[in-house]
Amino acid sequence: MLRSHTCGELRLSDKGKDVHLSGWVQKVRDKGKLIWIDLRDRYGITQLIFEEENTPQEVFEKAKECGREFVVTVKGEVIERLSKNDTIDTGDIEVVVRSIEILNESEVPPFTIEDNTDGGDDLRMKYRYLDIRRSPIKDKLFLRHKLLKTTRDFFNDAGFIEVETPVLIKSTPEGARDFIVPSRMNKGEFYALPQSPQTFKQLLMVSGLDKYYQLVKCFRDEDLRSDRQPEFTQIDCEMSFIDQSDIILTFGLFIKHLFNEILNVDIGEIPIMNYDDAINLYGSDKPDLRFDMKFRNVSDIMKGKGFNVFDDAESVLAICAPECSTYSRKDIDLLTDFVRKPQIGSKGLVYVKLNEDGSIKSSIDKFYSVEDLKKLSSQCNAKKGDLILILAGEKSQNLNAMSELRLLMGKKLELIDNNIFKPVWIIDFPLFIWDNETKRYHSVHHPFTSPVLDDLKTLKNEPEKVKANAYDLVINGVEIGGGSIRIHDRDLQEQIFKILGFSNKEANNQFGFLLDAFRYGTPPHGGIAFGFDRICSLFAGEESIKDFIAFPKNTSGKDVMIDSPSEISKDHLDELGIKLSD
Amino acid sequence: MLRSHTCGELRLSDKGKDVHLSGWVQKVRDKGKLIWIDLRDRYGITQLIFEEENTPQEVFEKAKECGREFVVTVKGEVIERLSKNDTIDTGDIEVVVRSIEILNESEVPPFTIEDNTDGGDDLRMKYRYLDIRRSPIKDKLFLRHKLLKTTRDFFNDAGFIEVETPVLIKSTPEGARDFIVPSRMNKGEFYALPQSPQTFKQLLMVSGLDKYYQLVKCFRDEDLRSDRQPEFTQIDCEMSFIDQSDIILTFGLFIKHLFNEILNVDIGEIPIMNYDDAINLYGSDKPDLRFDMKFRNVSDIMKGKGFNVFDDAESVLAICAPECSTYSRKDIDLLTDFVRKPQIGSKGLVYVKLNEDGSIKSSIDKFYSVEDLKKLSSQCNAKKGDLILILAGEKSQNLNAMSELRLLMGKKLELIDNNIFKPVWIIDFPLFIWDNETKRYHSVHHPFTSPVLDDLKTLKNEPEKVKANAYDLVINGVEIGGGSIRIHDRDLQEQIFKILGFSNKEANNQFGFLLDAFRYGTPPHGGIAFGFDRICSLFAGEESIKDFIAFPKNTSGKDVMIDSPSEISKDHLDELGIKLSD
Repeated sequence: MLRSHTCGELRLSDKGKDVHLSGWVQKVRDKGKLIWIDLRDRYGITQLIFEEENTPQEVFEKAKECGREFVVTVKGEVIERLSKNDTIDTGDIEVVVRSIEILNESEVPPFTIEDNTDGGDDLRMKYRYLDIRRSPIKDKLFLRHKLLKTTRDFFNDAGFIEVETPVLIKSTPEGARDFIVPSRMNKGEFYALPQSPQTFKQLLMVSGLDKYYQLVKCFRDEDLRSDRQPEFTQIDCEMSFIDQSDIILTFGLFIKHLFNEILNVDIGEIPIMNYDDAINLYGSDKPDLRFDMKFRNVSDIMKGKGFNVFDDAESVLAICAPECSTYSRKDIDLLTDFVRKPQIGSKGLVYVKLNEDGSIKSSIDKFYSVEDLKKLSSQCNAKKGDLILILAGEKSQNLNAMSELRLLMGKKLELIDNNIFKPVWIIDFPLFIWDNETKRYHSVHHPFTSPVLDDLKTLKNEPEKVKANAYDLVINGVEIGGGSIRIHDRDLQEQIFKILGFSNKEANNQFGFLLDAFRYGTPPHGGIAFGFDRICSLFAGEESIKDFIAFPKNTSGKDVMIDSPSEISKDHLDELGIKLSD
Repeated sequence: MLRSHTCGELRLSDKGKDVHLSGWVQKVRDKGKLIWIDLRDRYGITQLIFEEENTPQEVFEKAKECGREFVVTVKGEVIERLSKNDTIDTGDIEVVVRSIEILNESEVPPFTIEDNTDGGDDLRMKYRYLDIRRSPIKDKLFLRHKLLKTTRDFFNDAGFIEVETPVLIKSTPEGARDFIVPSRMNKGEFYALPQSPQTFKQLLMVSGLDKYYQLVKCFRDEDLRSDRQPEFTQIDCEMSFIDQSDIILTFGLFIKHLFNEILNVDIGEIPIMNYDDAINLYGSDKPDLRFDMKFRNVSDIMKGKGFNVFDDAESVLAICAPECSTYSRKDIDLLTDFVRKPQIGSKGLVYVKLNEDGSIKSSIDKFYSVEDLKKLSSQCNAKKGDLILILAGEKSQNLNAMSELRLLMGKKLELIDNNIFKPVWIIDFPLFIWDNETKRYHSVHHPFTSPVLDDLKTLKNEPEKVKANAYDLVINGVEIGGGSIRIHDRDLQEQIFKILGFSNKEANNQFGFLLDAFRYGTPPHGGIAFGFDRICSLFAGEESIKDFIAFPKNTSGKDVMIDSPSEISKDHLDELGIKLSD
């Protein structure tokens, strides 16, 4: 071992000890007759001292040669520092170096290895191995490690069995696009990489394993955004002989446990909200509950007063922005520009100011009496000094637009505290969604989700009215997990496939093994999957998942460090029985 | 929850309790007015009892309907059994059923769900989810789970950080064949699935993470045998600022810990053996040390006595088979046939019997005096009653043939105890091996393995003489892990690439990122990887790894359960910019 201690370990109590340290040169201060080197490793920084008078000449000269990021190993004695540094754990001591060996030199790194680096994103990605030397990135990888461990400990202690499901599986056209892998031994055929181990974990329940979990890499060949990577890690779980309330209990405890262990935070009881309520009150099935500002449906009050924009709208919604009655024309114009952006698509924004002096000023004064506007403000729970913002339009567009406006106002008014965590279970999702483009129903979750028993009667004639036994766990507006109670009955599963537009042949071709399994005693079962990368970023209070992944890909799916993907030799392609299209 | 207890939980102390159980019908014994059902789940079996007299009629009739593998949920009272069954944990009690619900029916399974099944290998693979219901398979998956957990606990406690390295990486033509994945966003380019995270874990050391581990899926597109799967799990580890002795210490402790925790076995100190000794004494770098029977080089004694077969042979080796002097002509013939098999390739077998009466009989009496044969038997440490077996030939063929003969004799003589574990570290491997076919040197381990410092002088002129800082851990003749101290110097790494026949361009194209990393302060580092599937089978005393994998593939790389690999639509291939060869 090239060390007796790490660079984060020595304390005043080690004074007088002969020690052996190895690490990287963080900084050299050369004062002529006196040199200090900050020696860094994963565990911390220790100050080395070289006095020309008392140091062998060749050691002193070697110390002078050292540059940033050189790797050195030194031996010496621990002494008490004259001027202590209480910002680091080893700040009470320094090491008088007796011998030094340069294990490896370093060129000047392409960016500074400091908490605040001068390196841009592209450069940091190309030299990711240097980026990880920086504490902000290193700490994120250690947070991830701790979350991995705490997660596994929880499920191991709770009697779950960890099973590794295969990575080379079968492609299914349903859902997102699969990555595929040509088979050399079965030319013309392909494996697919799993988007999730969904069918395998269900089969494990058919096997009687009862409680399963796995931290597993999943893959989706989709166009990428900042919070999406082509490969990502999932906490995948499944249980038998349970219902929805058992899932919500078990996995609620899991999340509470993570917050307790990692952040020492008690998130309290996790509330449960219907999908319909989430949509009607927050315009989203991922509501950020760190602040209130619920939507009010104000159609009753605002329609029929001759204001065409509202009269013709399917939906008229209001929110109350507290203490914003002093907003200027310019402030309002900025909000109006925001809701008019094409991706939001509102035609305009109506405001009603409840001035401190009791007067009311709005952009629609000529259509509404003071009486009307007082009714409105009472409906919105608005007080003097508040500002009511109203949007109108087609229902789903308007809900979405109001959701965006609400989040913007939450940020503007600093109502969103990054240090608190507001989880909520969303339940009672619809089972299907009608897709106007493909003219057929799609699963809101996936085809294995069971319908709510009471809704079975409408399954045939009004599938869109059927609710699903599905649930998402949302924290601070981010969906961190979701799942469902699965279908365990072959007939029902076949019925669902039919509604989704599968022919019998297609259903059997893709999922025959699961339908077969349902012949041999499948227990009631259900489960959940959590996005592990998102949990990591949530716990660190960050939005992007990229820095929580040791070697991420960019938005073109490239790893610029190793320069992948790359070309493959014709010989290799020939062996696989494929060639590039012309 | 559809149960208050599991089927393995109830004891006499639960007598009188109202309980709720769910599980599979293992067996029904219908005695007319009395029905017993064995109810099974992951945790055990509980006996249910239905007495016509005291049971509601519809419950009794439902019980009659139940067949094997039906899924049922029952409520009832725990009573003491009249005739106890001490072969199961719940054997003191049974449950008088008050209500029963059939949750799912089952067709007659394609094979019996019993420890000894009537199902053949192919059928069991097709219905793997039923096979896992059988205890012998289920127990193997739970052993794997326990090994996963114990492994992670060890490395977490030892301060290793778990880092997930990417699955979509870059193809390298060196070594075994990669599985490749076409990139849609970068048409004409491909990712590769990792054969191991080798370069990534080295980069993590460049990053300063110091101690890394991961349980990671790796992939090799090779032709398959019973102990090889296209995807397999590796315990992957790397450390910085260490030398070979640190690795041998740390990972020796790890293996000892596994044996202690899982099997409650102390494997003692792990001996260290040179590669040359392993080859010369056992003809293999994976010696099975559960029995002795070392090779003796008997050239000195046996050559120059006019026996051409020996005189012309590069190598003459003997082993002593204890208490086998009574072997018949037929016994000897069988051994001779064995060594003459084409894959072994010896020309013949010479024997020398040391009879109990002190006389010596051999197949080469006319060439050797009694004096000669006594010298031979003393060289072989042979006693009265023993049999000396001699093989001659070209050196490496002869070593290999003798190794096979030794293992055969070990089995024949029942010297191999499956309940003991004999680990050994093999060190001082050669760095390169000359390949006559490609007319160039290949790495014995991989191109990143460092040479022994003292041998650097011969690197240029006699590369075949250079030893590697590499080590394998072998237990009972199976290599369960291997690794090396890596090169951390750019110049040396480039020199090695050159000896391996890489042009500068090729080296930079494939490993430029690693060579680049070596510019910025790479610490001395090294590591090891263990074959996790093999560890599982070793701990269960089995040879095949297949049953320790939940959903394995067959030797054609097929998953016959899900019918994968399979065809992909032309649309999907078009999107990827590839097509099938004509």
